[in-house]
Amino acid sequence: MPLFITAIVLALSAIPCCLSIWPIPRSLDSGNQILKLSGLFDISINFTNPPQDLLDAVTRTKYSIQNDQLERLIVGRGLSDSTAFGSAKTLRTLVLALEQSASTAQPIATEAVVALDTRDEGYSLSVPLDGSAGVVSANTTLGLLHGLSTFEQLWYTYDGTIYTNYAPLTIVNDSPAYAYRGFMLDTARNFFSVSDIKRTLDAMYLVKINTFHWHITDSQSWPIQVVQFPELAQAGAYSANQSYTSSDIQDVVTYAGERGIDVQVEIDTPGHTAIIGASHPEYVACYLSDWITFAGEPPAGQLRLADAKVANFTAAVLAAVAETLPSTIFSTGGDELDTACYAADGPTQMMLNESGKTLFEALDIFTSTTHGALHALGKTAVVWEEMVLEYNTTTLRNDTIVMVWISSDDAAAVVQKGYRIVHAPSNYFYLDCGAGEWIGNDPTGNSWCDPFKTWQESYTFNPLANISSAQVSLVLGGEQLLWTEQSGPENLDSIVWPRAASSAEVFWTVGNISEALPRLHDVRYRMVQRGIKAIRLQPEWCALRPQVCDG
Amino acid sequence: MPLFITAIVLALSAIPCCLSIWPIPRSLDSGNQILKLSGLFDISINFTNPPQDLLDAVTRTKYSIQNDQLERLIVGRGLSDSTAFGSAKTLRTLVLALEQSASTAQPIATEAVVALDTRDEGYSLSVPLDGSAGVVSANTTLGLLHGLSTFEQLWYTYDGTIYTNYAPLTIVNDSPAYAYRGFMLDTARNFFSVSDIKRTLDAMYLVKINTFHWHITDSQSWPIQVVQFPELAQAGAYSANQSYTSSDIQDVVTYAGERGIDVQVEIDTPGHTAIIGASHPEYVACYLSDWITFAGEPPAGQLRLADAKVANFTAAVLAAVAETLPSTIFSTGGDELDTACYAADGPTQMMLNESGKTLFEALDIFTSTTHGALHALGKTAVVWEEMVLEYNTTTLRNDTIVMVWISSDDAAAVVQKGYRIVHAPSNYFYLDCGAGEWIGNDPTGNSWCDPFKTWQESYTFNPLANISSAQVSLVLGGEQLLWTEQSGPENLDSIVWPRAASSAEVFWTVGNISEALPRLHDVRYRMVQRGIKAIRLQPEWCALRPQVCDG
Repeated sequence: MPLFITAIVLALSAIPCCLSIWPIPRSLDSGNQILKLSGLFDISINFTNPPQDLLDAVTRTKYSIQNDQLERLIVGRGLSDSTAFGSAKTLRTLVLALEQSASTAQPIATEAVVALDTRDEGYSLSVPLDGSAGVVSANTTLGLLHGLSTFEQLWYTYDGTIYTNYAPLTIVNDSPAYAYRGFMLDTARNFFSVSDIKRTLDAMYLVKINTFHWHITDSQSWPIQVVQFPELAQAGAYSANQSYTSSDIQDVVTYAGERGIDVQVEIDTPGHTAIIGASHPEYVACYLSDWITFAGEPPAGQLRLADAKVANFTAAVLAAVAETLPSTIFSTGGDELDTACYAADGPTQMMLNESGKTLFEALDIFTSTTHGALHALGKTAVVWEEMVLEYNTTTLRNDTIVMVWISSDDAAAVVQKGYRIVHAPSNYFYLDCGAGEWIGNDPTGNSWCDPFKTWQESYTFNPLANISSAQVSLVLGGEQLLWTEQSGPENLDSIVWPRAASSAEVFWTVGNISEALPRLHDVRYRMVQRGIKAIRLQPEWCALRPQVCDG
Repeated sequence: MPLFITAIVLALSAIPCCLSIWPIPRSLDSGNQILKLSGLFDISINFTNPPQDLLDAVTRTKYSIQNDQLERLIVGRGLSDSTAFGSAKTLRTLVLALEQSASTAQPIATEAVVALDTRDEGYSLSVPLDGSAGVVSANTTLGLLHGLSTFEQLWYTYDGTIYTNYAPLTIVNDSPAYAYRGFMLDTARNFFSVSDIKRTLDAMYLVKINTFHWHITDSQSWPIQVVQFPELAQAGAYSANQSYTSSDIQDVVTYAGERGIDVQVEIDTPGHTAIIGASHPEYVACYLSDWITFAGEPPAGQLRLADAKVANFTAAVLAAVAETLPSTIFSTGGDELDTACYAADGPTQMMLNESGKTLFEALDIFTSTTHGALHALGKTAVVWEEMVLEYNTTTLRNDTIVMVWISSDDAAAVVQKGYRIVHAPSNYFYLDCGAGEWIGNDPTGNSWCDPFKTWQESYTFNPLANISSAQVSLVLGGEQLLWTEQSGPENLDSIVWPRAASSAEVFWTVGNISEALPRLHDVRYRMVQRGIKAIRLQPEWCALRPQVCDG
């Protein structure tokens, strides 16, 4: 019996398998022949005056291909490929070509932040078997960049030889199914350095995630230094070392843009703002009051939204931050207002009585003020779903983008109101779920959104569930999110990667979950080679044997 | 209202709080005065011929105190303490004293591996307020080491001053409630380098965990190079770079011993041994057979225990490893035998028929052979609970130590059979639980031992639940465990720490869960200062405000 069984397993291992590209292109024709990379390999650009950030991307691509040193994830690694090295051709050149229809080449960072409905991320790629030049072609430098990220993922190293086993390869007009593919990081519950963020952007680039949703402030800390309002970070950052200067923000934005990533900053208001009370206690209701009564989590405190002074202050803060950012979108939050807090807050009740307005009517005015300030800067506002589904907001502009987070079931109701949505459902995409209760003295508490969201669970998300065909265009895409009550720099990479790659593929194209795992192993191992501490998905024994550890 | 509420919170923050020592000593009298550390601080030894590893421990202690640079976890960090710096006394000397009853000082590494029932870990510590010498006294160098680890945890840094706010402090005869306080690491599902293990040992030392249970092999890989059986690692390690040489093993054992830690190696048999089939296919039943039918997880394969050749081979392998180790204990595993596999294995059935024995009778002979080899080397065998509760083993020696893992409820049944136990229950102490299903194509599967075991859950474990007073002496202690199907070097620190400190305190003394959290934050932040990437338990806002984020 053992010999017989061994034969079966060997046969399984021999199934041609495991194209490494993530997300999988929407159109792809690949062979299974070996093509080696020349020691003199270079990337040339077929147009004049290429922008500096494209030149930099070329340099990074060449560096990554030389330095990934990733062996194939098969038993023996590249040993079985090496027998064909002698007869394989060698690739000397990759050409980057802008399509004739393209106008003067713009920087990648410019193309990466144009409005979502006009962003052009498409590219084509050909890698011939005969050693003649490979070509990436696109209408935009952003498309060329995506072609480079695909090209990078073709290459393995064995015994000093860099090669692909997917030649010849042709990808025609690959482009994302959805314009918004994001990752959200909360830098307020716990702080993350600029270098932590840059490392995250590196990983995002590799899997073509194009939006960094930066949930930069919350009730626990205010790490962003706003030049016009220095008191906010002085009183609200955990420490001077745990705050972002204007230059830090620009550094992140530039780094992201060069990698094709738009930065959507969120300053969550009027809830999730207790920390503003550290510098402006008069603006905050329930400030440091009993959190069990007045907040979803400690500490309690939210802006006195019925106060025009507070609305104007908030609008000024948002504008001060937004005006420094190239993105067309900016999030004002709007989730989890605690009505019990406002009901108990004397000043709020006094102002509501004086104006004869309900709390939500006052919220409408507050939102009109803050969103008006953003609109004056040419920004499109982004909000969480309660603004539409719970607070009956009437002044939201039609172009407002709504993040659906409470449940994937809520998406349909938002699009029925005519708003564009980004899928961010806790039941599929919350990366923090499953780590248990973090409130101090609750010995047996589980995470509120237990269980842990596996990559498989996220991967099964259907962006169009319950969405009518007429409303499909309202679905902009989606994102996975890390709330950081129980996370910090220490586990950033391992809690995010490779899981956050799931939605990157869901919103680019649609794969098959059994086919996906070997490719996800591949991108994980490649991330580790690049210093991103992505977590193991299986024992290495399984990673080396595609499909053998399926159920 | 806001002013009133602020006053309450400030009052809470002012509660004297948060002695940082972990595990909390069983006898402790501490003040709340400031004592500074002299720039000339030194540790002296009051006896002749101190062993080199004690001298090295002194050097490390001085280094840690100088370099931890940990600020107190209170709002303002040490600012409120600094007003007392001017009038505070300065500690110049800590004396290490062996009690008069002590014989010639032994190396720590020697004291750390004596039999559990004779190990002496006790120490006393006094730190006077007046700047006169502090004293650690103990019967053994191992006790002195524990005194140093307690002493290290007293010190904070603020604005260049190193100080404690717990002076005067007196600890009389602190010693562990249980002799065995362990941490288990599985280095077979995924591989961990010697430096990963050493970093783990550093963290274990800090919280006085005294046993490293090294689950070194399993069905997926055989990373240990056994000199007499080189084929095992040659065929069974993931790669030559992912295996432990004899010198690596000795390096770990030495490093552990110097830190008061015994190394209990486990070579799990006769199950969990598929990888032996890579070099000895004739010894393994169901080798690489369908895992769903024949194994708990991929790959299938377990030793043909009814074959005397296999039993002798196994005994020789165990002895070859055990004879190189100073520990008195060695684990032969014995969990999760798959009876369906043996029932389907022709050679096993043939041998059972020839001998007229049942499978478990054959297991008894197998165990007698393997344990006999260990006994001949003076080693005490350790097994998993099934050996006693499921397989009706009759040849186990009375001194065998049994690890209870399936459920905490099983402990009572094992002690009722008269065996000594180590608590390792999956429902309290499995650090891997809650990460979801890892089998490839199971989109919605949860971890079998879901949910995640929080530090709080582990901390509530009662070592004596359902244990009669007459059987208390059979409870040796317990350990938290990391099985590594979904873990690797990338998340080792963050999945283990600070959670594994829970059992370190449960088995040293018994604390109070609400009181424990601030101390656990403290040891976590101290670990991070030492390069151990322990995970956040709460937002930093909560870490700085003891009890304010309780429910």
